[in-house]
Amino acid sequence: MKAKIIITPKKAVLDPQGKAVLNALEHMGYDGIEDVHVGRFLELELCGDKASMESKIEEACHRLLSNPVIEDYRVEWEE
Amino acid sequence: MKAKIIITPKKAVLDPQGKAVLNALEHMGYDGIEDVHVGRFLELELCGDKASMESKIEEACHRLLSNPVIEDYRVEWEE
Repeated sequence: MKAKIIITPKKAVLDPQGKAVLNALEHMGYDGIEDVHVGRFLELELCGDKASMESKIEEACHRLLSNPVIEDYRVEWEE
Repeated sequence: MKAKIIITPKKAVLDPQGKAVLNALEHMGYDGIEDVHVGRFLELELCGDKASMESKIEEACHRLLSNPVIEDYRVEWEE
């Protein structure tokens, strides 16, 4: 079983890394790009039953993997 | 239109960040986690027609956004 966690800065938070990527892309001649947001991606390989892992992973996201003050996260599950 | 890009280390490449997260989770008492891979997530907001953007973004992934020697990427499209 796999959990895929995507962590992104909240919309109201400044995202300097995203701005840097946007500037670099524009410099290289890629137009048509309006905005870039940069986040993190984690893939966890898990064993055990899904229901208990779901609550564990949810808690781990909150306590360790993301900073809930400035970041949002979502978890996608794959068998 | 949005392009969501997920960049992950190739399976054969050492992933020290993933190992660090795995160790931290184990230390905090989360068991049942076998492996962790850490990657990057980019969300691009785009305008223009999809066909031309697809080839541009594919090229940008290869030239700027990922390091094809040690990383894999995949692009998901959203209207």
